[in-house]
Amino acid sequence: MNSVTYKNRTIEQGELKYTGKAKEVYTTNDPDILWIHYLDQATAKNGKEKEQIDGKGQLNSAISHLLFDYLTQQNIKNHYLLSISKTDELVQALEILPIEVVTRNYASGHFVSKFQVTPMKKLTPIVQEFYYKSDALDDPFINDSQILALGYAVADELIYLRQEAQQINQLLSHLFSTINIQLIDFKLEFGRTASGSIILADELSPDNMRLVDLTTGDSLDKDIFREHKGDMTVGYHEVLDRLSHVK
Amino acid sequence: MNSVTYKNRTIEQGELKYTGKAKEVYTTNDPDILWIHYLDQATAKNGKEKEQIDGKGQLNSAISHLLFDYLTQQNIKNHYLLSISKTDELVQALEILPIEVVTRNYASGHFVSKFQVTPMKKLTPIVQEFYYKSDALDDPFINDSQILALGYAVADELIYLRQEAQQINQLLSHLFSTINIQLIDFKLEFGRTASGSIILADELSPDNMRLVDLTTGDSLDKDIFREHKGDMTVGYHEVLDRLSHVK
Ligand SMILES: Nc1ncnc2c1ncn2[C@@H]1O[C@H](COP(=O)(O)OP(=O)(O)O)[C@@H](O)[C@H]1O
Ligand SMILES: Nc1ncnc2c1ncn2[C@@H]1O[C@H](COP(=O)(O)OP(=O)(O)O)[C@@H](O)[C@H]1O
Ligand SMILES: [Mg+2]
Ligand SMILES: [Mg+2]
Repeated sequence: MNSVTYKNRTIEQGELKYTGKAKEVYTTNDPDILWIHYLDQATAKNGKEKEQIDGKGQLNSAISHLLFDYLTQQNIKNHYLLSISKTDELVQALEILPIEVVTRNYASGHFVSKFQVTPMKKLTPIVQEFYYKSDALDDPFINDSQILALGYAVADELIYLRQEAQQINQLLSHLFSTINIQLIDFKLEFGRTASGSIILADELSPDNMRLVDLTTGDSLDKDIFREHKGDMTVGYHEVLDRLSHVK
Repeated sequence: MNSVTYKNRTIEQGELKYTGKAKEVYTTNDPDILWIHYLDQATAKNGKEKEQIDGKGQLNSAISHLLFDYLTQQNIKNHYLLSISKTDELVQALEILPIEVVTRNYASGHFVSKFQVTPMKKLTPIVQEFYYKSDALDDPFINDSQILALGYAVADELIYLRQEAQQINQLLSHLFSTINIQLIDFKLEFGRTASGSIILADELSPDNMRLVDLTTGDSLDKDIFREHKGDMTVGYHEVLDRLSHVK
C-alpha cells in the first residue's frame, strides 16, 4: 500500500473513487484528504477523442504544483497540500461545485467560432463564462439566473467565483508575462470545504488554459493536441521549463 | 400607394426595407415611422422550416395590438403607434438592439432538453436569457460579459433590459391568468429611439411566447406548429378571443 507522511501523520492511499479524463482520485485514511494521480492521457471534445501521451501526467502535475504554490504565496486559497511523487499529490477533499469558471483575455477556440470574431481579439472587459459541469449534458453554457433557478449555486457564490477568477487571472497573467507567455483563457473549478468556504480546486495546467509564446505565437497548451499540431509534451515541457526558472 | 392618417398627417407606405420570418418592414414618408405588415407565414428552427398559414398574420397582428395597448396602459414604453388594417400597423422606427431577451417562468422547450429538467418545472427565481440576434450565427446564447466585450450593449442597458422584461413578465402573466392562461416563457426585442432611450419593440404574439390553457394544459402558441400538433390558428384564435373579452 502507498503511503506518505503529511504533517507528522501517515496518509495512506485508499480506494479509487473516480477516474476522470486526466486524473484518478483516491480516498485516503483521512476523510478530508484525497490522493490524486495524474494520468498519461489526453482527451478532446469532452472525452470523445482520447489518446495515451507518455509523460503528460508528470508534466501537468509539475506545472500544476508550481502554479498552486505561486497562488498560495499570493494568498489565493486552494486545495493543494503536498506533492507525493512525479504524478501523485495530496489535496483537500472538497465538494466540487458543478460549475466550471472560464476566463477569456483574448478570443480563441469555441468563442471565435460561436461569435465569428477575429482570433486573438483582446476582450475588454475580460469575458467570464460559467458551464454546468455535467458530462451527460456535455457541460452546457449556463447563465446566472439559470444557475439560481436550477439550484446549482447561490447568488453570493457566483459573485465570489467571479471575483476569485478575476484575481487569479490577474496573478497568472502577470506570472506568465514574466516568462514571455500570454494567458489567453483558462478554466477553473472550485469546491466547498467542510467548514463551508469555497476554494480553488482541480488542476492548473496547459490542459485547462491556452498559453501562447509572446514572440512566436506558438501554442504551448492542449490546442497542440486538439488541432493535431504535433507533440503536445514539447509545449508542456517548455511551459514547465520556463516556470521552473521564475525567481 | 397605401397611406393612412396619423396625428392629422398622411403617412405613406414607402419601400420594403426588410422581409423577416413573420413580418415585412416598410419605410414611410416619416423617417421616424415604419409600416409593418404581418405575413401569413410560420417558421420553426430559426427559419429552417417554413409554412404558409392562412389567417396567421391577422391573428398575430390583432393579439399584438391588444397586448401593446395593455402594456401602454401599464406605462410600459413601446413602439406601437397605430393599427392600419387587419395585417398592417405603424410603429416607431427604432435601432433594434441585437439582443433577444427571453424570460422563463416554467421550464419548456430548449431549456428542458438542455438541462434535462422536468417539463413545466416552476423556475424560481425566473430565468432571464440573452441571445445575440444574428441569423447567420443562429442566435447564440450569450452572457453579460460576452455582450460587453463584443460591444453589443453597455452594462446599464443590460440592467434596464432585465428590469423591463421582469416588469413586462409580471404584467403579462397577470393578464393571461385572468383568462385562464399560463405564460410559460416569451421573447422580447427592444430598440433605441432617436433620443437614445430604449423601448419595447417587435411583436407580442403566440409566435414569441408559450401559452398554456390552465385547465387543459393545451398549448395555444407556436408549439402547435413546432410539434406538428394540428392547426396552430385554432390556438391563436382562442388567445385572441379570450384577450378580446378582458374587461
Ligand atoms: N479537491 C478536490 N476534491 C474533490 N474532487 C476534486 C478535487 N479537485 C478536483 N476534483 C475532481 O476530481 C476530478 C479530477 O479528474 P479529471 O480527470 O480532471 O476529471 P474530469 O474528467 O471530470 O474533468 C474532477 O471531477 C474534479 O472535479
Ligand atoms: N420598431 C422597430 N423598428 C425597427 N425594426 C423593428 C421594429 N420592430 C421590429 N423590428 C424588426 O423588424 C423585423 C420584424 O420582422 P420579423 O419577421 O419578426 O423578423 P425576424 O425574422 O428577424 O424575426 C425584426 O428584425 C425586428 O427586429
Ligand atoms: Mg478535469
Ligand atoms: Mg421576429
